Amino acid sequence: MIFQQEIILKPIGFVKTIAIGDEVRDKTRTSQLVISKELTDALDGIDGFSHLFVLFWLHRTSTKQRKLLKVHPRRRKDLPLLGIFATRTMTRPNPVGLTLVELVKVEDNILTVRGLDAFNGTPVLDIKPFDSWDTAETAKVPEWWTKLKKEKAQKL
Amino acid sequence: MIFQQEIILKPIGFVKTIAIGDEVRDKTRTSQLVISKELTDALDGIDGFSHLFVLFWLHRTSTKQRKLLKVHPRRRKDLPLLGIFATRTMTRPNPVGLTLVELVKVEDNILTVRGLDAFNGTPVLDIKPFDSWDTAETAKVPEWWTKLKKEKAQKL
Repeated sequence: MIFQQEIILKPIGFVKTIAIGDEVRDKTRTSQLVISKELTDALDGIDGFSHLFVLFWLHRTSTKQRKLLKVHPRRRKDLPLLGIFATRTMTRPNPVGLTLVELVKVEDNILTVRGLDAFNGTPVLDIKPFDSWDTAETAKVPEWWTKLKKEKAQKL
Repeated sequence: MIFQQEIILKPIGFVKTIAIGDEVRDKTRTSQLVISKELTDALDGIDGFSHLFVLFWLHRTSTKQRKLLKVHPRRRKDLPLLGIFATRTMTRPNPVGLTLVELVKVEDNILTVRGLDAFNGTPVLDIKPFDSWDTAETAKVPEWWTKLKKEKAQKL
């Protein structure tokens, strides 16, 4: 098996948001996906779906960070040291972010979405409609994950 | 806003399956993700999750297909002509596939997964654990999607 050496992507648009720092992780916030004008027709019919996956380029991840194999989730030393593929950390070999968002509004080449945890100016790579094949009713997660979720709920 | 012109990814591994043609869409089948040996440590702890998202490179999509803006889902003329971002077609500007799979087994650098609709030799770009942020309990899908799902159920 010979590996294709390089795969080249081009952004289809970018994220527009006024959220800064930790504010981007607030799931109630809306932001905009400003898609290239020449791709506007490629959005036709997207409003038939209530939820979308957004794939975006984690452009703040450095080349050095892309080589990391293990991290503590959210850099917390009290949580186990894990392989990066067991986490959603931005430090991964191919730093592509994946977030489920609610589609609020479509206007020409601009989508307003709720729940996107991406910074202003983040390159958008793809948008995929969410459907029932994308979910598992009885998914198992590890203890550290449940602990983090509980803490987040208490903060809100 | 200046667009980053090119984003370069490298495969982290590849898909191994004996399924050919439409068989790859059979959700009960298992296949293997053969991850680069030097990334084996990056899989530590992944077995704490029952389900994963696999991001993979749709390497059969041609440069010409990447420029298409609209398609009929599954090439069916009886279904509406839709923008490619309203579908999961492989003909998209950045042909990255996204599929939720069940994690069956982890052995060193090889993951056995169930439900991956990717051909043998497909480059794998990323693996992300699935958790409850990745799902929406009350997601809306359009009529054409429901029609396709019903047809699939009848075939099984």
